Amino acid sequence: MSHPDIFPTLTGKHNLSLHVLTDRNWSRGRSMLEVAAAAIAGGATVIQLRDKQASTRILINEGMALRELTAQHGVLLIVNDRIDVALAINADGVHVGQDDMPGELARTLLGPDRILGITAGTMEEAVAGISAGADYLGISPIYPTRTKDDAGEPVGLSLLTDISRRYSTPLVAIGGITADNATEVLRAGATGVAVITAVVAAEDITAATRQLAIRLHL
Amino acid sequence: MSHPDIFPTLTGKHNLSLHVLTDRNWSRGRSMLEVAAAAIAGGATVIQLRDKQASTRILINEGMALRELTAQHGVLLIVNDRIDVALAINADGVHVGQDDMPGELARTLLGPDRILGITAGTMEEAVAGISAGADYLGISPIYPTRTKDDAGEPVGLSLLTDISRRYSTPLVAIGGITADNATEVLRAGATGVAVITAVVAAEDITAATRQLAIRLHL
Ligand code: NI
Repeated sequence: MSHPDIFPTLTGKHNLSLHVLTDRNWSRGRSMLEVAAAAIAGGATVIQLRDKQASTRILINEGMALRELTAQHGVLLIVNDRIDVALAINADGVHVGQDDMPGELARTLLGPDRILGITAGTMEEAVAGISAGADYLGISPIYPTRTKDDAGEPVGLSLLTDISRRYSTPLVAIGGITADNATEVLRAGATGVAVITAVVAAEDITAATRQLAIRLHL
Repeated sequence: MSHPDIFPTLTGKHNLSLHVLTDRNWSRGRSMLEVAAAAIAGGATVIQLRDKQASTRILINEGMALRELTAQHGVLLIVNDRIDVALAINADGVHVGQDDMPGELARTLLGPDRILGITAGTMEEAVAGISAGADYLGISPIYPTRTKDDAGEPVGLSLLTDISRRYSTPLVAIGGITADNATEVLRAGATGVAVITAVVAAEDITAATRQLAIRLHL
């Protein structure tokens, strides 16, 4: 793969601008590694390994391959939910939702140095996540989305704005984000965006990622 | 709950004699905590938390309740597969199968002090498990079983005998074990047995556990 240039960082310590979440069900039969490589070529700055159906052994094997790929390209690797897998593959961090491990426990198991992302769909969840030591909050779902039945009612852009005015924790917007609405999401206060179908279900994953990267000024 | 007497230990350091695995699908609607309490009252020496369908949050909540119960009764708590959950609830150990985290990685994440059990269905898997630092091997499946579609062909008693003659690692037999065959399983070389349906699907869980405990001379 060609290596993208070093990205300008929006967040200082880490570049949390453009998360691509793996999703077996939306990848049209392409392998997780193939999808990730194409997304990285298009400018993804974070790959998030998410595979709720896979056995731990498969997650470890997929994760180790993604670890090698992301390290080669200077891209962050974050594991959804599974702190055991994140530690085993030496991922950069973990993202936990409200059905996953509580934030404080997650921080304890992860240690102080790895990235902890916590999903928040309300101001209360955002405050709890910040208190638990989140390095970023995943604000979700911004718009209606096809991938998560249990994602709750769209919170729109107002929650992003409210949180960003009160707190300095980086906010990653997720849920229905595309190249068409990415600009308004940033204007509302997001530090970055996370996408699934907009990238992994695209015919040309690299082109779809690049469209987003351009809107994010990457 | 009444507290069973202190058990004689077959294994020295830990009493690995009678494992009861939780299984939501076979518990006739009774809660995991209710099943575990009844099994402990009947003489279970190890409760293994296994719930492949549950979210991490549910596992943590169930696990914390089981941790309190088992600690009160001096019973070991082992978590199936999920090292993150085991660490979060301060379980005594983890059991990993061949689809779970590889043994060496599991030992690294668990540290030296917690119990690591590894499933083995062949002599090669047994040797690998011992090399990875298993505190006990789960030899599986001994007899045909109803609970695991992917458990493979029954290994019978001969593998137990072969391993027990060569190695001193405690062997916990699993798969189709009942009060009727527990004695021959011990004679074949098992240190203890693990059961699911024989206990959790029973009308009277405490009585069913006690029948097994008697055969194990507990
Ligand atoms: Ni490359």
